[in-house]
Amino acid sequence: MTIKPFLDDNFLLENRMAEILYHDFAAKQPIIDYHNHLSPEDIASNKNFENLTAIWLNGDHYKWRAMRSFGIPEHYITGEAPPLEKFKKWAETVPYTIRNPLFHWTHLELRRYFDVDELLTPYNAEQVYHHCSELLQTAAFSTQNLLRNMNVEVVCTTDDPVDDLHYHRQYSKQASPLQSFNPSLSFPKGTESFQLLPAFRPDKSILILNDGFKNYIEKLSEAAGMAIQSFDDLLQALTQRMDYFHENGCRIADHGLEQTYSEDFTLGEVNAIFQNRLSGQKITEGEARRYMSAVLYHLGCQYADRGWVQQYHLGALRNNNARLLGQLGPDTGFDSIGDWAQAAALSKYLNRLDMEGKLAKTILYNLNPRDNEVMASMIGNFNDGSVRGKMQFGSAWWFLDQKDGMERQINALSNMGLLSCFIGMLTDSRSFLSFPRHEYFRRLLCNLIGKDIHNGELPNDVNWLGSIVEDICYRNAKAYFGV
Amino acid sequence: MTIKPFLDDNFLLENRMAEILYHDFAAKQPIIDYHNHLSPEDIASNKNFENLTAIWLNGDHYKWRAMRSFGIPEHYITGEAPPLEKFKKWAETVPYTIRNPLFHWTHLELRRYFDVDELLTPYNAEQVYHHCSELLQTAAFSTQNLLRNMNVEVVCTTDDPVDDLHYHRQYSKQASPLQSFNPSLSFPKGTESFQLLPAFRPDKSILILNDGFKNYIEKLSEAAGMAIQSFDDLLQALTQRMDYFHENGCRIADHGLEQTYSEDFTLGEVNAIFQNRLSGQKITEGEARRYMSAVLYHLGCQYADRGWVQQYHLGALRNNNARLLGQLGPDTGFDSIGDWAQAAALSKYLNRLDMEGKLAKTILYNLNPRDNEVMASMIGNFNDGSVRGKMQFGSAWWFLDQKDGMERQINALSNMGLLSCFIGMLTDSRSFLSFPRHEYFRRLLCNLIGKDIHNGELPNDVNWLGSIVEDICYRNAKAYFGV
Amino acid sequence: MTIKPFLDDNFLLENRMAEILYHDFAAKQPIIDYHNHLSPEDIASNKNFENLTAIWLNGDHYKWRAMRSFGIPEHYITGEAPPLEKFKKWAETVPYTIRNPLFHWTHLELRRYFDVDELLTPYNAEQVYHHCSELLQTAAFSTQNLLRNMNVEVVCTTDDPVDDLHYHRQYSKQASPLQSFNPSLSFPKGTESFQLLPAFRPDKSILILNDGFKNYIEKLSEAAGMAIQSFDDLLQALTQRMDYFHENGCRIADHGLEQTYSEDFTLGEVNAIFQNRLSGQKITEGEARRYMSAVLYHLGCQYADRGWVQQYHLGALRNNNARLLGQLGPDTGFDSIGDWAQAAALSKYLNRLDMEGKLAKTILYNLNPRDNEVMASMIGNFNDGSVRGKMQFGSAWWFLDQKDGMERQINALSNMGLLSCFIGMLTDSRSFLSFPRHEYFRRLLCNLIGKDIHNGELPNDVNWLGSIVEDICYRNAKAYFGV
Repeated sequence: MTIKPFLDDNFLLENRMAEILYHDFAAKQPIIDYHNHLSPEDIASNKNFENLTAIWLNGDHYKWRAMRSFGIPEHYITGEAPPLEKFKKWAETVPYTIRNPLFHWTHLELRRYFDVDELLTPYNAEQVYHHCSELLQTAAFSTQNLLRNMNVEVVCTTDDPVDDLHYHRQYSKQASPLQSFNPSLSFPKGTESFQLLPAFRPDKSILILNDGFKNYIEKLSEAAGMAIQSFDDLLQALTQRMDYFHENGCRIADHGLEQTYSEDFTLGEVNAIFQNRLSGQKITEGEARRYMSAVLYHLGCQYADRGWVQQYHLGALRNNNARLLGQLGPDTGFDSIGDWAQAAALSKYLNRLDMEGKLAKTILYNLNPRDNEVMASMIGNFNDGSVRGKMQFGSAWWFLDQKDGMERQINALSNMGLLSCFIGMLTDSRSFLSFPRHEYFRRLLCNLIGKDIHNGELPNDVNWLGSIVEDICYRNAKAYFGV
Repeated sequence: MTIKPFLDDNFLLENRMAEILYHDFAAKQPIIDYHNHLSPEDIASNKNFENLTAIWLNGDHYKWRAMRSFGIPEHYITGEAPPLEKFKKWAETVPYTIRNPLFHWTHLELRRYFDVDELLTPYNAEQVYHHCSELLQTAAFSTQNLLRNMNVEVVCTTDDPVDDLHYHRQYSKQASPLQSFNPSLSFPKGTESFQLLPAFRPDKSILILNDGFKNYIEKLSEAAGMAIQSFDDLLQALTQRMDYFHENGCRIADHGLEQTYSEDFTLGEVNAIFQNRLSGQKITEGEARRYMSAVLYHLGCQYADRGWVQQYHLGALRNNNARLLGQLGPDTGFDSIGDWAQAAALSKYLNRLDMEGKLAKTILYNLNPRDNEVMASMIGNFNDGSVRGKMQFGSAWWFLDQKDGMERQINALSNMGLLSCFIGMLTDSRSFLSFPRHEYFRRLLCNLIGKDIHNGELPNDVNWLGSIVEDICYRNAKAYFGV
Repeated sequence: MTIKPFLDDNFLLENRMAEILYHDFAAKQPIIDYHNHLSPEDIASNKNFENLTAIWLNGDHYKWRAMRSFGIPEHYITGEAPPLEKFKKWAETVPYTIRNPLFHWTHLELRRYFDVDELLTPYNAEQVYHHCSELLQTAAFSTQNLLRNMNVEVVCTTDDPVDDLHYHRQYSKQASPLQSFNPSLSFPKGTESFQLLPAFRPDKSILILNDGFKNYIEKLSEAAGMAIQSFDDLLQALTQRMDYFHENGCRIADHGLEQTYSEDFTLGEVNAIFQNRLSGQKITEGEARRYMSAVLYHLGCQYADRGWVQQYHLGALRNNNARLLGQLGPDTGFDSIGDWAQAAALSKYLNRLDMEGKLAKTILYNLNPRDNEVMASMIGNFNDGSVRGKMQFGSAWWFLDQKDGMERQINALSNMGLLSCFIGMLTDSRSFLSFPRHEYFRRLLCNLIGKDIHNGELPNDVNWLGSIVEDICYRNAKAYFGV
């Protein structure tokens, strides 16, 4: 019995065919990271992070949840503890994250960015911290170089309609030289820089029951340079912002919703609901759903008119812990997986758009893996031969962004649709160090296909299957988004 | 590392025990295909299909969905393109269906029926088309011979209560000689012909909200030779049709429903709902559910009285794409998987029948695999020692009719019930070329058991486990349906 | 190809690392069985069971369901047939339970307790019966010795608030000498006896719609020695019983519910609902939910005040078969898996307690495995750094207490939380012979970790991972429950 070394070159690759598919086909592909939550400001400023805690722990609610589960006090997580102390507490936690994706991500990121081959423990924490923090001060570790050195070709952030896209515009005017820490990359001169594109995420104009809704509408009014007093005004303002985003390179929209909303509505009633909400009256859940249905429908039509891709991230149960939410705000690690019904409303929504000839290219993401088969079969209802892979079942997301979750998504898609037309992985991350997740996905994909070849469930034609792997890792996304 | 050849004799069999179980036990068993959607007319007429497109692509919405996802225009799918052109477009799609069951089915069917060992690609499409189309003109490829050559003993179609079963009656009078393309079969003289039985599928009399409901009741009235003006008339007409079906060999009923309906109702209120619907008034969803509960209950009792087996196919979300449905009609590839709650109503329905001593042998099928455990544990509630395996968790169905889906069904049943009492596989297909799906199921079944032996999770007693394999592949169904 | 012998020393262990982890780390740990349904009377009396049927078949609804599915008449299951006849019918069923956990449990229990290495069949049934029944008469097979010989350190039963805990009190006063049939155990003198603790299970005071509710409240009134005429009285009585349980060593509460209830309520309205119910008026489902929400909230606060651990077993659909329930009563094999939504109400309930600083250590168990990821991610919302592993996703339960179910629970927890902080296995059983299920769990756990090492997904550091295995098998529970 040979024991495979941890995280070696053939990590996650269980046989020779998988190795060939990964090393000869997948690994060479550039990255189109078509959905993430990176800070455009950090990218445009090409900043260097001050230390490893700043780039790796701050803002990373995955790590925070693990530390809290392990019994680390908040002082060392989001609190006032000095960066090195926080890092030590993380290093104390890491050995106890075995079998959680954090264990793989942590060591993969230490290797790929910092050439640190050791396992992180309390014993080497300080040394690792200083080693990495020093590197982080060098030009090769500026935000732009971090991305280029991962062979990133396109970065698509997630932006609010009220955003002025200042940093996207600023970035598009500059072109700083590549400093490489990645010897495997040799970009031809002049093709070194990646594209930075915004994506339109209008959740705050949809979620009418949110506390801040009224304030948000005011911001939107300001951004659009027009008064918003009626539902019609709102639609006009959103349309105006879409035009502005489009001029600035946006071709993708995104939505984070518990469910799709596709109630029947009249514009008159929706207008009344909207105005009631603005005037401070309480509206019912049914009214909220009708309003949200109306906004979504309008947006969907507009995306289609512009040739955009629309994404729906469905099923997160957010802000569960009111006490800590009150102290720390949203996106700090108190969200989890919901179990709402998804199929009927989603079908109705997509059908309503399709009936009007307004169904844009669409990516559906579910957070509860029990819905994989609903999503994987739903896309088939609206793939109509017009565009290869028009409807997509999106890659495993958030809590599912691990081996089991990704494999189940890939398998469900394979069984109920065409894996070959899949546009593949995205980081969905806030972290500049998260891009090895593309590598992780690619290894898993190659391993699944490699196993099938090995078992006689796929023919032993590595060139053909390698070409499909390349499609999934790169070419399909390139064609799909037209970037 | 040895790479197993694609689709060889030991396809899907991962060790020697699995091979023995399959080749020495499973493969030899005749097929009882107790639920499918074959055309009785095509069987009775013993017709030959004009070409490979006619028998293989026409009507096969699995292939259509794949082609649409791949970006093939409808013209080449359900449109006016000539048969060879359609076939070429399918051949273009096939290499991109890897990891979808279509990839396995396609090549398995080419081998088993036509001895074509090549992978289908655009390069050999024309040659394959002509080769197969020629064979299809020979006597060995008539519909009846296609079935016999797969060792089919019983074929059970799916029929509407208004059907006069003309073709079933016609078939039962004839006995044409077997033309074999399958050298492994040598039927003793006189036992060559398979049984063709109808099944009773009264969905159209249940789904009161359907557009065509009123027209359908008129047809039913005609078929039953009596006026249907009240709910009582309806029940009488259905009863009359069951008698007629029974005389013609029917012993099985089937239902395709989103959920089971088991609301409380009074006959008076149900009669009013029914009459309102017939007179063109709008009825509510709650009324519809009460009506459907009443019809289902009546039918369930009648099945029990006749000793029939009742099947429930639960959870399809149908007709999602209204635009293409309008052009192409139902069952053309726009259905998918729903996510309704199933457990409570199903339990109430089965209990209501059981309380009256009217619970027939029952097979439950779920379309959403997340419900596997609900179904696998539900049957245990009503297995009362009266009949071995009285309540069945049906084989993986439709979208789940693939390796992962079948294995999950077999495993859920194993874990929560008795796999040994399982009545096994059925095609549920519209295609005369789909019978290798029995082989597919049998290989998977033998592989799961073989792996357990190999791993020491089952004793190495191949005769005993082989006998259980035979039961599941053939003898259990034979005893269960009494055919 | 080597075939592994059935159920050998390395049963379920697929490679050398798994074997080391199991034999050198897991197997040596004592058992803390923190949740089961053993009879305190049987333990306190240190009785010997009269024969194998009495200890193994009577009360075991898992076996009963299997026998009913196999077509065994009730006479041989719960009926009047003599013990040996019942056993023979079970032995007839066993070979047909392959792939069901019963097949493994049966043979594991025969080996571990009775040194019977044969497979149970009709041919050796009588011999096995007599062999085991004779052993059962010896001192080593008294209830207390059965537990000690499995290296049990703590047994925590499940008790109704009205229980006087007579047998727990009786047990705590005695200390009988260990008679060993387990040569691997050598307890130091004086440490031989296990702790027997009660757990507080107040379901009957919560489930207001139950038929026996009013009677139950009378019993509770009697047990608490006070009149219960208002909701406030009820809370006081429950509080009084908690105090009594606490004095008698109780540190754990448990609840068996379809869902969590967390409706908004006022004490006034809840009092009215309670009084209406006591006075025989019908209450609505909405009223019931508000009442149940109120009781649960009160209980949760009280658990927190006492430093107890609260358990929630969610999602069983009980008493499905009214006919046989009427004949045989509850817990006789007519329960199954429900499919209610769980996430939102559970989140709201936990949050409500947390907001008040009243969230006790909590273990969440789901019966429907489709909810694994909801539970595994829910616990992360309320792990706040205060206690390592404060919120637990409980081990696979009831129908899920088998290889697939346990592995899925372990994997979901690994992927979304910290497996290293898991408190591990419990039997949840009514049977004195069920303790090899700890062995079963431990083997599966070691196998999963061993496979990860083998595949290079975990580092090859057996001491560190062995230490985590020990934590999960023993030390985490010891620390968590403070026993």
